[in-house]
Amino acid sequence: MRIGILTGGGDCPGLNAVIRAVVRKAVDVHGDEVVGFRDGWRGVLEDDAVALDLAAVRGLLPRGGTVLGTSRTNPFASDDGAERLRATLRRRGIDALVPIGGEDTLGVAARLGDAGVQVVGVPKTIDNDLEGTDYTFGFDTAVGVAMEAIDRLHTTGDSHHRTLVVEVMGRHAGWIALHAGMAGGANVVLVPERPFDVDAVVAHCRHRFESGYSPIVVVSEGARPAEGTLVTADGGLDAFGHVRLGGIGAALAALLEERTGREARAVVLGHVQRGGTPSQFDRVLATRFGLAAVDALHDGASGVMVALRGTDIVRVPIADATARLKLVPLERYAEVEVFFG
Amino acid sequence: MRIGILTGGGDCPGLNAVIRAVVRKAVDVHGDEVVGFRDGWRGVLEDDAVALDLAAVRGLLPRGGTVLGTSRTNPFASDDGAERLRATLRRRGIDALVPIGGEDTLGVAARLGDAGVQVVGVPKTIDNDLEGTDYTFGFDTAVGVAMEAIDRLHTTGDSHHRTLVVEVMGRHAGWIALHAGMAGGANVVLVPERPFDVDAVVAHCRHRFESGYSPIVVVSEGARPAEGTLVTADGGLDAFGHVRLGGIGAALAALLEERTGREARAVVLGHVQRGGTPSQFDRVLATRFGLAAVDALHDGASGVMVALRGTDIVRVPIADATARLKLVPLERYAEVEVFFG
Amino acid sequence: MRIGILTGGGDCPGLNAVIRAVVRKAVDVHGDEVVGFRDGWRGVLEDDAVALDLAAVRGLLPRGGTVLGTSRTNPFASDDGAERLRATLRRRGIDALVPIGGEDTLGVAARLGDAGVQVVGVPKTIDNDLEGTDYTFGFDTAVGVAMEAIDRLHTTGDSHHRTLVVEVMGRHAGWIALHAGMAGGANVVLVPERPFDVDAVVAHCRHRFESGYSPIVVVSEGARPAEGTLVTADGGLDAFGHVRLGGIGAALAALLEERTGREARAVVLGHVQRGGTPSQFDRVLATRFGLAAVDALHDGASGVMVALRGTDIVRVPIADATARLKLVPLERYAEVEVFFG
Amino acid sequence: MRIGILTGGGDCPGLNAVIRAVVRKAVDVHGDEVVGFRDGWRGVLEDDAVALDLAAVRGLLPRGGTVLGTSRTNPFASDDGAERLRATLRRRGIDALVPIGGEDTLGVAARLGDAGVQVVGVPKTIDNDLEGTDYTFGFDTAVGVAMEAIDRLHTTGDSHHRTLVVEVMGRHAGWIALHAGMAGGANVVLVPERPFDVDAVVAHCRHRFESGYSPIVVVSEGARPAEGTLVTADGGLDAFGHVRLGGIGAALAALLEERTGREARAVVLGHVQRGGTPSQFDRVLATRFGLAAVDALHDGASGVMVALRGTDIVRVPIADATARLKLVPLERYAEVEVFFG
Repeated sequence: MRIGILTGGGDCPGLNAVIRAVVRKAVDVHGDEVVGFRDGWRGVLEDDAVALDLAAVRGLLPRGGTVLGTSRTNPFASDDGAERLRATLRRRGIDALVPIGGEDTLGVAARLGDAGVQVVGVPKTIDNDLEGTDYTFGFDTAVGVAMEAIDRLHTTGDSHHRTLVVEVMGRHAGWIALHAGMAGGANVVLVPERPFDVDAVVAHCRHRFESGYSPIVVVSEGARPAEGTLVTADGGLDAFGHVRLGGIGAALAALLEERTGREARAVVLGHVQRGGTPSQFDRVLATRFGLAAVDALHDGASGVMVALRGTDIVRVPIADATARLKLVPLERYAEVEVFFG
Repeated sequence: MRIGILTGGGDCPGLNAVIRAVVRKAVDVHGDEVVGFRDGWRGVLEDDAVALDLAAVRGLLPRGGTVLGTSRTNPFASDDGAERLRATLRRRGIDALVPIGGEDTLGVAARLGDAGVQVVGVPKTIDNDLEGTDYTFGFDTAVGVAMEAIDRLHTTGDSHHRTLVVEVMGRHAGWIALHAGMAGGANVVLVPERPFDVDAVVAHCRHRFESGYSPIVVVSEGARPAEGTLVTADGGLDAFGHVRLGGIGAALAALLEERTGREARAVVLGHVQRGGTPSQFDRVLATRFGLAAVDALHDGASGVMVALRGTDIVRVPIADATARLKLVPLERYAEVEVFFG
Repeated sequence: MRIGILTGGGDCPGLNAVIRAVVRKAVDVHGDEVVGFRDGWRGVLEDDAVALDLAAVRGLLPRGGTVLGTSRTNPFASDDGAERLRATLRRRGIDALVPIGGEDTLGVAARLGDAGVQVVGVPKTIDNDLEGTDYTFGFDTAVGVAMEAIDRLHTTGDSHHRTLVVEVMGRHAGWIALHAGMAGGANVVLVPERPFDVDAVVAHCRHRFESGYSPIVVVSEGARPAEGTLVTADGGLDAFGHVRLGGIGAALAALLEERTGREARAVVLGHVQRGGTPSQFDRVLATRFGLAAVDALHDGASGVMVALRGTDIVRVPIADATARLKLVPLERYAEVEVFFG
Repeated sequence: MRIGILTGGGDCPGLNAVIRAVVRKAVDVHGDEVVGFRDGWRGVLEDDAVALDLAAVRGLLPRGGTVLGTSRTNPFASDDGAERLRATLRRRGIDALVPIGGEDTLGVAARLGDAGVQVVGVPKTIDNDLEGTDYTFGFDTAVGVAMEAIDRLHTTGDSHHRTLVVEVMGRHAGWIALHAGMAGGANVVLVPERPFDVDAVVAHCRHRFESGYSPIVVVSEGARPAEGTLVTADGGLDAFGHVRLGGIGAALAALLEERTGREARAVVLGHVQRGGTPSQFDRVLATRFGLAAVDALHDGASGVMVALRGTDIVRVPIADATARLKLVPLERYAEVEVFFG
């Protein structure tokens, strides 16, 4: 069997581990050949690919990023996209595809599957907002990075009595904030799913100062206040809806400093959360996803993606994952509120 | 409600996080009182306890070990044990117990539950060998420590062409070896569930040297060769069945050095795997377990333990977890064999 | 001997290690008594202190922050400050003081020393900008945190072709940027000592993109462009001289995005760099400083601080350290310029 | 200029960073060419080499091990060794050599220098036992790995009251044990320079148990008891002089368990200490060494090695470093004895 593989969307710790596992299993166990397309669907559109043998994937397991590169190219954006994809697959004699990506990448995969191409997807989202799988790789690593930052802030906060705001990833879903906040023992956790009450946050911070401690606030990059707009005295921030410079973390710190009368500082972890070596959880998950994808191909499966359910790797229709975002449910969010003491 | 809490058996990263979560939820949300018994069931037997308020659990989240201490005391070993447990609970006005522990600790809990004491257990096993729950806290941390060690060995092994043997925890179950080996990219993974073929291990190592690389072998402390006994030339090792000094790791390294003719070295991580700060995964899980245990008590549940199923915390009969060990199934072990290249 | 100890200024990993070492050596070896003043000179002014015995310092070695608290209180700001300090020392029977701090804290120490109080200082500056000592504790930890962040950014940058700006501490001196940039393999390092040429930075970034890679720019919080003011198209930034919201890192990212036409993102590590457990280098240095300070007191030394010279702990006049800042010399800065490729 | 570079002896975190810095500076700044010989002097003897341009060293900074490989080949072991070295240098048109290594590698370098070849050495020893330089790269990383292990042992030891023995590297010099023990807060530190008194170690451990805590003993692999031989009851250990299986760590744990009547466990970090990514300290030092070596070559220096003195990189005669080992002096060892409480 000749298998094509590609990585699309934002990068994520564990992508290389999936690629390596696919190649190891396909080549070593089944005698398949594997071709890696560069920069997601762009590589298929433009027939930009590289052969992946065992030597090509040696040492990839611990490496962050993706050796194949990635892009957000949507092949269906142009009229002849579908035909160009098929032409590349024909020209290269590709029997099946393993696209690794999120909503967009898998959406393309589903359409190709509908059109008769054998496709087994591997879900990828650092924000943990894909339905259909308990977790994907990358999320565990990202939460770990954020937790370590919060751990470090605890001692320094308490020595100085200042508010520390940590902005973490999560444009639409607050999973990273929720888990990092719970793991790090944050005092306030703000997520996109629940527009926050600025007065309540200020009150929490004040209460914390009065108890002799310093508040640590974890905020998803996509979290916004309920009221919509806010102006700080120095005019640098006209509205939370427009927080281009420095993001919500810096804006919130400025606001809390003004409202509590205590110094506030922001930490913006940004891409540090999505780079670097994957955690063991993510390496194991990514490896198992890769192995299972090859199994699925050899079982003749198509239009599905591999997914984690409990401790099992299962196959689910790609459409299950791309129908809607997996948001933090209210009862999970309620778990962290007990720590708003 | 007045809740008693205790930790039994070997220690594990996350124990303190459970204690903290129980106290936070019980005291802050329900207005309960919490009493911590020292050194597992010994503290209940001998009425050795300490009141746990919010101040007592401050800062506990990231700390390894257990502030309550632990022991392997079996209260039913003496005839009047059951009566002494009940006497302590009466004297202190304890309404319900939250025992945190493995097979033994939970076994006692189940018997107390049968006898009418309200008990909600929290499962704990660093080896991941308890049935009834997908994972418990501590395992993720232990695998992470082992993986980091393997990561470090890769570069040094390749620079020098020597066999590196890493002995990890796992007396009866090979979960740590399996996951650490997969996450670290080990070449051979040996687990207690499958007595290993020494000749095959030697052959793998030789093959690896011939390919220009150095073999990394991960071995559970409880793994043993299929043939039972082995003698090395220097007489230091009379049998694998008697590997008191240095353990299986050192014995295997000595054997591989002799059989392959290449230097071999052992790394024995020992208690490093069970100490120190928990990973984010373990902190979140331990915290959720603690919160859920208090919920269960207030729901009137008893004889159950909290457990992880997928992403949910559920309640299962304690007996489900203590009936038998959760071993590595053959199909999971087969996943790592693809890497024996 | 009865020794008073205090920590002043910003907190720093290693403060607790110094306190512990002073107490261990003083109490265990010399039979001294140690009193810890709270919140720097404020504790002496207001006679707010706590006895420090061996039990009080147990477990302090790995802990960030300072158990004594810290402040920037200047006792000489009020007319009767000097008298109040002396009154407290008399009342408590303090024979000698060990103030741990930077320029300000040690400046007060020097004045007290001139006035006849036996004082042996311990230098502290996370920015590494104190003269008289090769290094102080905290700096190594801070650089390590910044390096780990840069390591993580490398993979993600290369997968996506975007500029990543890392803002690190360093208001007046660029040591953290210099070392973290060199250790992390940054492409551009900007320090306060050398106002930077915006056009040159833009050119470096462009050159990097043209070579197929993503630029990583490390910038000290105190670095500023040579020309003084800059306006970006979206008006969010009126001048680098006024970069309150989000700091220089966010401002520079906005500018580079506009000028290079490629996405740019900022990482702001902030207090993450000064919190958390100290590195081994910092723990050893802090411990040796503490031991040496007690030695110095028992030798009758005063008006000096302990300092690192090569591998030796020596004593230097406090005035040597407080006379001027230790800035990055041109030839050290030149070392990183070779990597601006 | 055409520069040859090679790495000899045991591997060490930072070797790749030196190689990268030499190439960056030589190629980018001076327009030199660089040739890397494989496996130390063997590569020169057998003319096994590879051209090193900028692309070849990209991404090397954080990587452990050495891309050039290493060996302990002594070219002067054969009569025609010297001539073969010179023949290779002539054939390749090598103007100067940068050998990176310890006593043996630099010893060869010195002889070549005496014979008229331009040679600038870079010192390397993970044990920190080379004279002539304050530190070399790799040592800081190794101590950090050992400290993290000790940190993890503290919590687990205290929960269980058992002796934990950590065996660290150091065949002849106890620097790693000394620094890791001080940084980790070990209770007993045993080094090769001071044969230890077994009774005193047992007494320390007992005292520690009596105080309610668990002893942590750090022992260099080369440390030995003063009395020379010891027999434990189970016969597994006939003499400390013959501790082949499991090493001194396992032997000492067995002994302490027998003598104290409390469980004892050994942790053997082995090659974990010398593998993996270098710490920031080691990356900066290795990079500065590499840059300075190229400077020295262009200054016409020969027969010297680069060295760290305080914060400066200087040049010292190679002979200074190879004349004798740098051992832990008594007064440095005395620093840790204050913690034997």
